[in-house]
This record gives sequence, C-alpha cells and structure tokens, in this order.
Amino acid sequence: MRAVVYNGRNDVSVTDVPEPEVGEGEVKLRVGYNGICGSDLHEYFAGPIFIPQGDAHPLTGRKLPLTLGHEFAGTVTEVGPGVADVAEGDRVAVMPLYTCGRCERCTSGRPNVCTQIGFHGLMSDGGMAESTVVPVHMLHKLPEQVSLEMGALVEPMAVAYHAAALGQVAPGGSAAVFGAGPIGIGLWFALRGMGVDDVWVIEPSATRRAAIEKLGATTLDPTAVDVPAAIADATGGRRADAAYDAAGVAPAVQTALASIGAAKPMVSVAIYETPLETPLINLVMNESRIQGSLCYTHEDYRAVIDLMSRGHYDTTGWVEKIAMGDVVAEGFEALHAGQKMKVLVDPTA
Amino acid sequence: MRAVVYNGRNDVSVTDVPEPEVGEGEVKLRVGYNGICGSDLHEYFAGPIFIPQGDAHPLTGRKLPLTLGHEFAGTVTEVGPGVADVAEGDRVAVMPLYTCGRCERCTSGRPNVCTQIGFHGLMSDGGMAESTVVPVHMLHKLPEQVSLEMGALVEPMAVAYHAAALGQVAPGGSAAVFGAGPIGIGLWFALRGMGVDDVWVIEPSATRRAAIEKLGATTLDPTAVDVPAAIADATGGRRADAAYDAAGVAPAVQTALASIGAAKPMVSVAIYETPLETPLINLVMNESRIQGSLCYTHEDYRAVIDLMSRGHYDTTGWVEKIAMGDVVAEGFEALHAGQKMKVLVDPTA
Repeated sequence: MRAVVYNGRNDVSVTDVPEPEVGEGEVKLRVGYNGICGSDLHEYFAGPIFIPQGDAHPLTGRKLPLTLGHEFAGTVTEVGPGVADVAEGDRVAVMPLYTCGRCERCTSGRPNVCTQIGFHGLMSDGGMAESTVVPVHMLHKLPEQVSLEMGALVEPMAVAYHAAALGQVAPGGSAAVFGAGPIGIGLWFALRGMGVDDVWVIEPSATRRAAIEKLGATTLDPTAVDVPAAIADATGGRRADAAYDAAGVAPAVQTALASIGAAKPMVSVAIYETPLETPLINLVMNESRIQGSLCYTHEDYRAVIDLMSRGHYDTTGWVEKIAMGDVVAEGFEALHAGQKMKVLVDPTA
Repeated sequence: MRAVVYNGRNDVSVTDVPEPEVGEGEVKLRVGYNGICGSDLHEYFAGPIFIPQGDAHPLTGRKLPLTLGHEFAGTVTEVGPGVADVAEGDRVAVMPLYTCGRCERCTSGRPNVCTQIGFHGLMSDGGMAESTVVPVHMLHKLPEQVSLEMGALVEPMAVAYHAAALGQVAPGGSAAVFGAGPIGIGLWFALRGMGVDDVWVIEPSATRRAAIEKLGATTLDPTAVDVPAAIADATGGRRADAAYDAAGVAPAVQTALASIGAAKPMVSVAIYETPLETPLINLVMNESRIQGSLCYTHEDYRAVIDLMSRGHYDTTGWVEKIAMGDVVAEGFEALHAGQKMKVLVDPTA
C-alpha cells in the first residue's frame, strides 16, 4: 500500500510499504482522511523532534522511518482477536495516544500528560496511508451524520475543546481567543458549544480574520484596536472570563494577560519554541493565572463528536483536501508558506 | 508627634507632625513597631510608585507628603464614635487595606484585588509614627501570647500565607520556595503551619540560606545543585506539589517551572519590575500553571495570628529593631545594601 513515510528532516517520501497486520486487541482501518498538524510541519522542517531517532519509543518500540499522520478517521476493515463491540464497516475517529497506564499521571486521570506519552503517527506508523492498525482503545465511533472528513478533524478540535474547558468559563460568559489558525477556530467552536456568549477572536492577518468571520465569529485586529480596552469596554470593566493563547507569540501573551479579569486564566495552547517575555506582574496584580493545556482525553473526543453530530462545526473556508501524492508541495510547503490553514490528505487519491 | 514622612524619591524626613484625630468608626493607636517593606524601599529609591503624587487617592483623598508604614501593630489609645468591641488598651495588628466595597472584585470576595485598592501608609498617614488612626475594620486583636514585635510581622506573614494557600498543597505534600527573604521565610512558616511535610527553600545567598536553616528549613543552593533533578529524586519522580517564586528573577521562575509536577502551580508572589523570559512550554507539557498572589484577606490575618499564638513563628536571625531616627541609614540603606533582612522601626526610640 502507499504511505507518507518520514525518513528525517526535509525527507518525506510517498512510497509503497507493506500492509500492516492486525494483532490481538487491534483493528485495521481504511483511512478516509488524515489532517496535517503543525507538529508534522515541525518534524518536516526542523525535526526529528517527537519522532524517535536514536532509541525506540518505550511504549511502541518504534523509531524512524515511520508513516506520518495522527489526525484521521476511517472505516474498520479487519478486527483482531479479543476485540468486542467493533465490527467491519464501523466508521471511527482515532484518539492517537499511547500511554503507560502506570505513572502517577495516568493513574490520577491525566493520561494526556503521561510521562511516556506516544502518538500514533509520530511514534508508530500513522494515518497518512491507505490503511493503519490501531489498538481498539483508541477508537471513537462516528454517528451517521458525521463524515470521515469531519471525523479527521476531531483530533485538532479536541485539542481546542480540552483547552477551552480548562478556561472554566460559565455559560453566558466571555472569552478572548488569540490566533485564528485551526486551534483558534476550534476554540471558537468549542466555546460557542459550551454556551459562552461573547467570544472575541484576535488575529492580525486579514485573511484569517475574514475566514473565521464567515463562520460567525467577532474579530479584533490587534494592529488597529487597543484590545484590552475594547474588551474592558464590552464587559463593563470586568474584562474577559478567560483568554486563550493559540498564537504562541509574545504580543499575544502580553495582550491576553491585560485582557482577563481578576482570578481568571489565560490558557496556553501553543508550542512555544523559546521562552517569551511574559509580564508576570499582571498575574500578581489581578491574581490571575496562566494555565497550560496539552492534548485531550476521551471525554473531549466524546464532547466534540457530540457537537459535530449536531452540526456545530463548519469546514467552510479553512479546510482543504489534497491527494496523498501532493503532500509535500500542496501540504507541508503550502501550510508553511501560510497559503492554506488546514489540509486533509486523501490516501485514495 | 514624630513621624517618618515621605516627600518624594530619596526624600524622607523624620519630623514633627500633628497628632492624628479620631473620627467616627476609627481608633487611634500608639504604634509598637512598624516594619519596613520592600515596597517602601521601592518608593524611597525609585518612587513615587504607589504613593499618589498628582491626583489624590480616590478612597483616602490623600497624596504625598505622607507618613510611611503599613506593617504595624500597636495599642489602642482612643476610640472614636460608633466603634464597638474595641477598648483602650487593646493590642492589635492592622490589615492596612482601603477597598471600595462596590466593585465586582470586592463584591465577589476578592477585596485584595479591589480596582481602587489603597494602603494605610502609602495612600494615607501610616504606622512609622508615634501614633496613627485607622478605621476599625482594619483591626485584628492580638492574643496575650503575641507580642507587638510579632504583631508588626502579621502583614508580611499574611502576604506569604495567602500565597501559600493559593498553592493548594495538601497536608503531607511537598513544596519548593524560591528566595529566602522575608516572604520566602513567611512561605516556609506558612507551609509548615499547613502541614506540608517537605519544603525546600532555594536561595543562592549563603547568608540567607544559613538564616533560614537555623529556623529549621531544608535549603538548596541553585548555584551548586540541579534543583529540578534533586526535587524529582526526593519525590520519586512526581516533583513538587507547588513552587513559589518569592525571588522575582528569571532563573528562579525557570527553575520553579521545571520543579513542579503535572497540573501543579507555581505561585508568583513577587514584584516583577519587567517582563521575564518565561518558558511557557513547561506549562503546556505538564498542564501546570502560574498563579499570581496579591496581599491577603482577613482570613489570612486570622490564620497567621492563630499560628503566632501557638508559637509557630520565630524571628531569630532575620528580624532587627531600629530607632525611628535611624530609619534611613539603618533601615532603607541597610536593607537596600542587603545588610539586613527585616527591620522593625521603634517609634519610641
């Protein structure tokens, strides 16, 4: 079968690989769509970062070369021994986490920060392929109304949903989202789905503002507007109940911290390549906080799929599909150049 | 009477001022001792910062020149009209906050972050004087076992206690305190008072380490020890249940964030003069957080006074008393030069 294989930095090949075989407790999927994640770009242009190179990963026993892809949905084509409640033909999204199940983090209900965490598609052969094999515990069945295209978006939307929930905004409350990339869009959908009334999306790019405005969002251009003052005005001086940094740059962090109310959080859901100049005095003067957010849990997957089943998410204007053979030029390169926002790879094309 | 009057930067005089008069709902105190706070040093060497210069403070109607001093305890010498439950001769510590009582922060139980907050001794005539007059709501009676010297330390110890509580460490847990100045010492006492078993105090100064070790603390020298590794070792890999930054410098923040476990806080209880290079990626990878802490509430005062009444706090080796006439040379200058840690001004000497 054909797959997108990562050999190292700037070295990805679309090539023939052996069909994966199903073991005990596993299922084989025919992949519908597989999204390209920001972390895939990091691996391609600056990696290997998460992909094991020297020692194999302790939970998967694998290192490069590997098939990429951890944002995918597909159809079950084979069921391994010992698997119940899953049948050939089931359509599923995959929560691609390998966790040890034994560390203090796993046993206290935080598998998303497992000390040995691994990802299907970074520490094992992933979903940018005609087929992939996953442990059954990774599966989430998709209701009829949720397409495989939408199903491939559950993973990034769950990243955003998990972060949105950490902001603890009550229904009817307010939030400021910094950055209108795929995670910023996911935050907007998640917060609206949680009943948060007033959400401002702060984004300097006119193209990105236009895209999220078409989905229904209210935006602010931080190059033209005093964002903390605008939010203070709109909230009668209370400021936002939460801010979200999905931009990962110092101006966003600084503006976010000036936009939240007393005892409120700024949730960080970005990959910060370097330490940022952070005005911690804002946290002290308002007893506010910065809260990190990583990945998701099964609960977040269930919540996102439930919202999708009710038609809450809309891919118009920000999601594009490409053929697997075009993954480098139309995927990695186009995303890196900012020409596209979210790309789903079709392994059949 | 004599008082320490702040006229502006580098301009403090010990001079005669009129005796303050008691109004409705107020009491007059003969001051026992008044501590010099880090913020007093900031006002002296770099101010006016908090002390109003142009417009008078909205709650007190005052601006400079003002009598300094917001860390004090004294004896009631006169009771104004409408004051119940307080009598001449009562010994009291003072919680020196003026709050509006009307803003969303005050009405939601967070007067310590009132939008108009003022301090007795920064926005009104304070406790570095033979006498001072305060509203009755500021008073906390001192039990017989608590001296006026100890009572003057309630304010800074309440700053530390409030921060310690925000760390949410369970009894038997662990904590890392960065900085062994008066607030670091207060954090150590507060955490031990809350039943936290393992507290490491991280401090580069050998003098400060020696001082807090004499009180019973376990210290780490960050210039000689890999602090995150040492704490990971001591906690079986879980790392600390909370870290506290009472140093306010980037190396402390960076080491603190590497020393806490998943979903745990670093509490900031420092005045950061500039934004610091902060590795937010640590927060993301561990879903940990930075939590700001400001001032205290009446609850913190009650908790500290209760611990003091049981002999929990010890001033040996870090608290010195000076005569009011020596406040500049033996107080501000000596503290600024790092020759002393905590100075209590005796207005009678």
